[in-house]
Amino acid sequence: MGGGLSGGDLLAGYLHSRAGDFLRGLRLYGESGADTASADAAARTLRGAARRIGGGLHTFRPLLDPGWADSFRTELGWLSGTLAQEHACAARLRRLLGALARLSGGGPGEAGGATLPGARTETPPQGPPAAGPPQGSLTVGASRAGALLERQLTLARTRAHSTTLQALGSSRFHAVADTVAVLASEVLLSPRAEAPAADVLTASVAATEHRLLDAVAALPLARAAHPYNSDALVHGLATAADGEAQDAPWHRVRRLLRMHRYAQEVWCEGLPPDPALHAAGQALDRHRDAAEAAAAAANAARTPRIAPATAYALGVLHADQRHEVEAARYAFQQLWQQTGARR
Amino acid sequence: MGGGLSGGDLLAGYLHSRAGDFLRGLRLYGESGADTASADAAARTLRGAARRIGGGLHTFRPLLDPGWADSFRTELGWLSGTLAQEHACAARLRRLLGALARLSGGGPGEAGGATLPGARTETPPQGPPAAGPPQGSLTVGASRAGALLERQLTLARTRAHSTTLQALGSSRFHAVADTVAVLASEVLLSPRAEAPAADVLTASVAATEHRLLDAVAALPLARAAHPYNSDALVHGLATAADGEAQDAPWHRVRRLLRMHRYAQEVWCEGLPPDPALHAAGQALDRHRDAAEAAAAAANAARTPRIAPATAYALGVLHADQRHEVEAARYAFQQLWQQTGARR
Repeated sequence: MGGGLSGGDLLAGYLHSRAGDFLRGLRLYGESGADTASADAAARTLRGAARRIGGGLHTFRPLLDPGWADSFRTELGWLSGTLAQEHACAARLRRLLGALARLSGGGPGEAGGATLPGARTETPPQGPPAAGPPQGSLTVGASRAGALLERQLTLARTRAHSTTLQALGSSRFHAVADTVAVLASEVLLSPRAEAPAADVLTASVAATEHRLLDAVAALPLARAAHPYNSDALVHGLATAADGEAQDAPWHRVRRLLRMHRYAQEVWCEGLPPDPALHAAGQALDRHRDAAEAAAAAANAARTPRIAPATAYALGVLHADQRHEVEAARYAFQQLWQQTGARR
Repeated sequence: MGGGLSGGDLLAGYLHSRAGDFLRGLRLYGESGADTASADAAARTLRGAARRIGGGLHTFRPLLDPGWADSFRTELGWLSGTLAQEHACAARLRRLLGALARLSGGGPGEAGGATLPGARTETPPQGPPAAGPPQGSLTVGASRAGALLERQLTLARTRAHSTTLQALGSSRFHAVADTVAVLASEVLLSPRAEAPAADVLTASVAATEHRLLDAVAALPLARAAHPYNSDALVHGLATAADGEAQDAPWHRVRRLLRMHRYAQEVWCEGLPPDPALHAAGQALDRHRDAAEAAAAAANAARTPRIAPATAYALGVLHADQRHEVEAARYAFQQLWQQTGARR
């Protein structure tokens, strides 16, 4: 693994490959036309390549021309952020409808009492007279909440799709694509890149790992190790800002863990990632997804003139997703201990 | 512990003592007047004595006159059930207001964003215009939900108090009190009670334990051992009957565990109970309390013409209490394993 190679040789090889992935994703996206599944897959390839190139530019900045690396990385961040939105809206809706079905006594994906919406995208703004059968007045809330979420998140997804199309047609995007095309054959290295790979890459990877370890040390892991600690719902009825402040350190670890994984890919290209570390990253992905789904449920509950039964179902859904947040923290804590045992 | 005594001697001694407790509780209740704390304590003494006598009559039925034991036990069950209501309403309200304060970011008992109700017992049936500030429209829900619950549970408590007073003045109660007064000095034993305590009492205690073990074996303990399994909220938006069906086997174990504890008191009077078994019983008490609090929150959400923000807060609260149900099952499972290790 990089025996006699210089750090620059190894890094350039990695960046060339990722630039190739990016250009292939771009070509596939252009060819996908009306085929949504192909467009999704192509966007995923583009996004993955953009994030890995950005990660490489960040982690191995000492080996690169810093001005070029920084401005390029900013543009890649804009692109991957834009591309992620549409996918995130679709995934969030799937997660919330699945949870509603589960909460209505069906399995995920089954309709259960919550009769998955779709046939009906127009809900009357007022519920049925609340004097109806007491049970029914709450169970109808699940299907109405589902219809409301579907309407809101489908709209958000459509907007994200337009934004993506606009972005991909912009001169800003063309400039990024041109830079990536150059990257496929040429990387602007600094003099330090001539040092042996074993020295300079290891130092950069270690620096990334230290930042990760510091961020993990800042997490309330001792608390997360106790199941059912109710931490994630502590601000369930307070302002959204309180909840976000609580989640931020976990989101930070998620990003640093991904950065660390990408950094290891450069050094050990082709090797499978550490399974526990990979699973820990997936737990933090779930943490992020559940936190955003919980926020979407709370946000839907702020829709004017919804029926109380709809608001009730959204409250149950919000709390359910905040418990998924707590469950993800517990899972991360368990997995992180396993990686610690091997460190 | 009952060396040369007959089963009847030991059982009669125990029942005499409990009858004494009952009569003392009754006297204290009569003397408590307007002092609510004293009345509560007296009612607790009465209830505990009635349940223990009823438990003894049930477990050691083979040693007693069966017709007398059965009809007496029915009357004691009626009395302790009636006495429990007022206390349960007060405890439920405390639990729900504590949870609301916690969910609003304050500690239990602190007001936090949920400003504990009390000053304001009249909530307008309609919320503020939903076009108000989006954050506020949900945070106001916590205090309104608290006010609504306080109104409903205070009313229920007042009704339970009247029912208790009526019951204690009824001829049915006087008949029970007379029977207990006789029990303080005389127990109607069967011929089997003449056998040595070590034989007959042990057999009865073992029968109780078998019923307990069978009931525990019917619980989904393997599932409960996985934290965050989301089982307790599976019917969170389905009908109340589904949720109750799920809780019933746990409630059954709670009752059998109490019966088992009372049976052991007869045999090992004065010895402290097995700590893990005691804690397991407390976990199932929490299970019952949380399940009933969750039902009260769902029930409050069925109040006609409540504001959506109130319904949302009640939904969050319901889900929170159902997670307490799940947490109690997890705790029971852990504690039960400890008792198993000693069996």
